[in-house]
Amino acid sequence: MLTVAEAAIEGGATVIQLRDKVASTRKLVEEGLVLRELTRRRGVLLIVNDRIDVALAVDADGAHVGQDDMPAHLARRLLGPERILGVSAGNLEEARAAVEAGADYLGIGPIYPTRGKLDAGVPVGTQFVLGLKLRYATPLVAIGGITAENAGEVIQAGAAGIAVITAVVNAEDIAAAARKLATASSSKVEKGE
Amino acid sequence: MLTVAEAAIEGGATVIQLRDKVASTRKLVEEGLVLRELTRRRGVLLIVNDRIDVALAVDADGAHVGQDDMPAHLARRLLGPERILGVSAGNLEEARAAVEAGADYLGIGPIYPTRGKLDAGVPVGTQFVLGLKLRYATPLVAIGGITAENAGEVIQAGAAGIAVITAVVNAEDIAAAARKLATASSSKVEKGE
Ligand code: NI
Repeated sequence: MLTVAEAAIEGGATVIQLRDKVASTRKLVEEGLVLRELTRRRGVLLIVNDRIDVALAVDADGAHVGQDDMPAHLARRLLGPERILGVSAGNLEEARAAVEAGADYLGIGPIYPTRGKLDAGVPVGTQFVLGLKLRYATPLVAIGGITAENAGEVIQAGAAGIAVITAVVNAEDIAAAARKLATASSSKVEKGE
Repeated sequence: MLTVAEAAIEGGATVIQLRDKVASTRKLVEEGLVLRELTRRRGVLLIVNDRIDVALAVDADGAHVGQDDMPAHLARRLLGPERILGVSAGNLEEARAAVEAGADYLGIGPIYPTRGKLDAGVPVGTQFVLGLKLRYATPLVAIGGITAENAGEVIQAGAAGIAVITAVVNAEDIAAAARKLATASSSKVEKGE
């Protein structure tokens, strides 16, 4: 795991996300503490997916919650005002609720069809990114199905950053793939694992 | 689920534990909020197993962590000094660490062979309860394999309370079974689910 995160940082990732839906809490905390040390040393952000308890325990920079996770307003209360709260939004109503709950960024996606997560849902397209960009000042992070080839048009539509899971992990040379993506988007690349 | 918790309270349970290792965080929070309303109305304690985030989100009275969950000292830090922290201990070393981390009670077990949890481990017997009772002032809650028939000797050995999972849930009349256990132990009965 460390190898993947380190390689992603080498390639230009500015955010590392700890994501593991099957590990025990003990294991998550151990992984999180290792990533915390790495990300602090390398000056990149650490965001914990779903688990606010783990985010607080390892002193992560923030947490990201989806629609099956902690409701955003409770997540914000637990995290306090300083830590970063990201919230996944797949439609306008979810986006509005997330903004009202105090989300620091919205995770929007999947933009394109994706094979990384089976439960990722129906692709929303770049139109949705554009629609949110016009409505809210909250930064949008595009997630799902994004490759070096289509990253440009996602940024064009108004995404402040892009999150990559499959594109980087499936690539043989992780650092090179991340670098290619970072170049393509000329923006932040978030690396989930 | 509500039915089981309500029946357990009818039968004399003074603590309800929310325990679900497979539910999504969203589901756990929803279940926890329902149990919080019930337990508050009935004047019994609500303890959340493993998930400190859920315990904080639903304003539970405390949390219980096992050896695969959040390390006890981190759990204590996240819960704050007021909420109850229970820690499972299966041997002397784990018990000592839990006491040092500020556990309000130790979950000791399984005392007897159990069929409720496959990962419950080797039975520690009442001798272990007695050994801890002599060493520490921290209340001991006995867990695992306890029935109306053997509850008395567990209390005799020094347990402040007993936690029941299979004994109550397997019984056809939950309230009656809990009542029988409460009578047998003449002490607190914790009801996990
Ligand atoms: Ni889980």
